[in-house]
Amino acid sequence: MTVRQLSLPELAAACGELGVPGVGLWREPVQDFGVKAAARLVRDAGLAVTTLCRGGFLTAIDADERARALADNRAAVDEAAALGTDTLVLVSGGLPAGSKDLRGARERIADALGELGPYAAGRGVRLAIEPLHPMYAADRCVVSTLAQALDLAERFPAEQVGVAVDTYHVWWDDTAPAQIARAGAGGRIHTFQLADWTTPLPEGVLNGRGQVGDGAVDMREWRGLVDAAGYSGPVEVELFNDALWARDGREVLAETAARYVAHAL
Amino acid sequence: MTVRQLSLPELAAACGELGVPGVGLWREPVQDFGVKAAARLVRDAGLAVTTLCRGGFLTAIDADERARALADNRAAVDEAAALGTDTLVLVSGGLPAGSKDLRGARERIADALGELGPYAAGRGVRLAIEPLHPMYAADRCVVSTLAQALDLAERFPAEQVGVAVDTYHVWWDDTAPAQIARAGAGGRIHTFQLADWTTPLPEGVLNGRGQVGDGAVDMREWRGLVDAAGYSGPVEVELFNDALWARDGREVLAETAARYVAHAL
Repeated sequence: MTVRQLSLPELAAACGELGVPGVGLWREPVQDFGVKAAARLVRDAGLAVTTLCRGGFLTAIDADERARALADNRAAVDEAAALGTDTLVLVSGGLPAGSKDLRGARERIADALGELGPYAAGRGVRLAIEPLHPMYAADRCVVSTLAQALDLAERFPAEQVGVAVDTYHVWWDDTAPAQIARAGAGGRIHTFQLADWTTPLPEGVLNGRGQVGDGAVDMREWRGLVDAAGYSGPVEVELFNDALWARDGREVLAETAARYVAHAL
Repeated sequence: MTVRQLSLPELAAACGELGVPGVGLWREPVQDFGVKAAARLVRDAGLAVTTLCRGGFLTAIDADERARALADNRAAVDEAAALGTDTLVLVSGGLPAGSKDLRGARERIADALGELGPYAAGRGVRLAIEPLHPMYAADRCVVSTLAQALDLAERFPAEQVGVAVDTYHVWWDDTAPAQIARAGAGGRIHTFQLADWTTPLPEGVLNGRGQVGDGAVDMREWRGLVDAAGYSGPVEVELFNDALWARDGREVLAETAARYVAHAL
């Protein structure tokens, strides 16, 4: 998503040239390209698929809507397995229209995980609950902190459900370091993502994630926390940023790799 | 601030007509009107000044900047005392330019409170640390949760330093109910403010606070929490909202009073 202006073949080629060993993919471009074709492409390029983004949106009250969400998440698990990644990232979903019941929404997520966790584990895929910044609590994700994500995940085995740690979402939280240790001890850090916090935030607050090094986040400190928690998996950089999308994708990818080396290696 | 389009005399008259018994004032319009004149106006109108907003911005590293901030906060305390309110709300300040050190910034706030708390208490004024939503952590307020605010406040006597509970800032936080109980037990809920959470957020995320009842916040639940914590002080409605500011101020004030009755009484 950081360089969504690149097609999948362009992305695979650019990663190869830069020595980027893995890539997190999003479902929409994979579906557009064809899941099997995408799997072949990354395999032929020697590129690991670190995660698939994203499943989730599991907070519906309406029975039909809920059934559709579960079916879509099973499809996402199948796509992840086909791509050869072991991790499907979940954005849990916001409040249903008119609802003010955060607790109820979080409980419906737990119910859904009880169905999806065994399905995913049976296909070699782990679910990663991603707590999103509290500014998304109403409309995208009622899971706002690592503590909440772990409270949900720990109801299930770690090989079924863990968490995604993204600096953009947790950097402000003074309880996050202890929660990272908790997640690591339980083998539940299923991915680690970097994005920087820059202001002012854009309207809608979706596409203002800062390039690594441009903002308020001490990347090396967070890297140190997940390292100390025993995490040895891939480090992803996930930027939604209109200014970056408007630039040449290969240039942005090279810049991002350089920023990673400078700020987070 | 909810009806900043009204002059202070218009505001006092409209509150009188509507039976609104108190008002939280901001420093700038009070200074423009004259502190003594404003104090006389509200006294003559029989209107209580619930709080003065705001002091704070206490995170500077530079010595001169820090001295200026402390002097400005002492002036704010003096203004609060002159207006006859016992509470000065503090917005603690963001990260200094180029800094990524949230912990250091929070510690400098504690240092400043050690100087300002006794000064305020000596003039009959309590300081209320307002945790601001985590989306303001970089540029306005490094104190993002009630737990953090109380960790700071509890270093000092409750008659010097407490907290402001604002639904807009804490509604997403599942640990906030326990923190409200903690604050109430310590006599540290120094004010309680209502604003609703509506989306999409506007650019800069400052002026999108929703009218009470328009958004995701269960006002009666939060009212019940502060009531159960023993809070018996005023309930303020504090909305920063471009759409409300563009309307007739007396109409907005009447609507706000009606919404309070409908959703939070």
